[in-house]
Amino acid sequence: MNKISLLSQLTIILVRPKYPGNIGAAARIAWNMGIENLIVVSDQLPEREPMAQMATHKAAHLIDNLRLCTTLPEALAPFSIIIGTTARRGRQRIIERSPREIVETILPQLENNRTALVFGPEDSGLTNEDLKHCQLLSAIPTADFSSLNLAQAVAIHCYEIYYGIVHSQKDMLPAPRLASSFELESMYSCLEKSLTQIDFMGEKSHTYWMNNIRQFLAQTKLSSKDTNIIRKICRKFLLNSKTKNINHNGAP
Amino acid sequence: MNKISLLSQLTIILVRPKYPGNIGAAARIAWNMGIENLIVVSDQLPEREPMAQMATHKAAHLIDNLRLCTTLPEALAPFSIIIGTTARRGRQRIIERSPREIVETILPQLENNRTALVFGPEDSGLTNEDLKHCQLLSAIPTADFSSLNLAQAVAIHCYEIYYGIVHSQKDMLPAPRLASSFELESMYSCLEKSLTQIDFMGEKSHTYWMNNIRQFLAQTKLSSKDTNIIRKICRKFLLNSKTKNINHNGAP
Repeated sequence: MNKISLLSQLTIILVRPKYPGNIGAAARIAWNMGIENLIVVSDQLPEREPMAQMATHKAAHLIDNLRLCTTLPEALAPFSIIIGTTARRGRQRIIERSPREIVETILPQLENNRTALVFGPEDSGLTNEDLKHCQLLSAIPTADFSSLNLAQAVAIHCYEIYYGIVHSQKDMLPAPRLASSFELESMYSCLEKSLTQIDFMGEKSHTYWMNNIRQFLAQTKLSSKDTNIIRKICRKFLLNSKTKNINHNGAP
Repeated sequence: MNKISLLSQLTIILVRPKYPGNIGAAARIAWNMGIENLIVVSDQLPEREPMAQMATHKAAHLIDNLRLCTTLPEALAPFSIIIGTTARRGRQRIIERSPREIVETILPQLENNRTALVFGPEDSGLTNEDLKHCQLLSAIPTADFSSLNLAQAVAIHCYEIYYGIVHSQKDMLPAPRLASSFELESMYSCLEKSLTQIDFMGEKSHTYWMNNIRQFLAQTKLSSKDTNIIRKICRKFLLNSKTKNINHNGAP
């Protein structure tokens, strides 16, 4: 795979954007930087005209080929690398890195992994629930911890990706394919059931524990095979605990 | 001077912008990246409301303190380092560099030199006449030699400057103060008169020769003192040639 074709692995995902003009501006900069895939997470597709106007005729095909998803997990299912963008500095989060550091991290993984770059709504950014699905967190460094205009945040990320790919070493060794978001979510779901079954998590702290487990596992670059193994272990575990429970209750 | 205060040396100049919203978006990203000075070159100040709306209340003071100049030379007069931004790849130009290379070049000079970053109108960019005043030319690398949305081009440049300054070496040796645009323009004017006087330039190729001389001298980092010396030489030269001409013509 040549350097420039690595860009086809990337998709820009805009979650619940408020202004159609920003979708158009995102399409234009994505096209400027060689990225052709755009997904909008929303209940309905915004009006075409204000999007197309900001996209200009050169990036109009990105607007016409725009994929609409009603939920973020649906949009993310096929991706193995998911980068959330944020301006906020909250607790219980993955470590925030600059877009440049993120690009350095993902470059060797791009050849074998479809990658999503996720942006939240203009006013509030991605929610904690949205960020749960992201393995990497990108925050643009600013003078005053201030939040950027959405279209400009997309611009800076697309620029860093394009620049990073063009200036990357030719003999970079590609990293193997990682598990997709769909596979990871199935695994987390199994894990949660198992941990509930053994009463590891109190009723109130489910989110706390699951977020910690997600953050821990996000660092380990799980393959598709790894998620299968974990799921199998969980299933066996569930089966075994049920048997034990039945025995405890004395039921047949 | 500490690193962050270097940002006060920078000014964003928007030449004949068409959409007030883009001025607001430029103000917001400038503020995000610690740059507080904004100049608009135009016949009249655009309506405040659409500018302020895009600037958001956090960067509204940049809109209120916006300087309006009717010509680019008037706007540029106090600056010693002038960076023109362009998407086009023309002939007879200074070498285009990426914003990152530009930032590396200007970093040691920032402490002693006021620096202008100049952006052209949305549809056509800076003219050759505008670019004549620029010593450095910045072109954002794109996948298809395509032109960027103005507000996004401003964003990428402000981001590169902020990032470059924050990550610069602490013990960087500052370069000396260079001549201001006002001093340089006086010098070029003297030079042109002298070269005309000695018939160095044919009538048609004035622009050609002067652009070449500008490009050559732009690389030499002239100080205020240097421009004074060159001006003095030119004046002496003019005085001497006139005497000669008078002698040639045989007039008293």
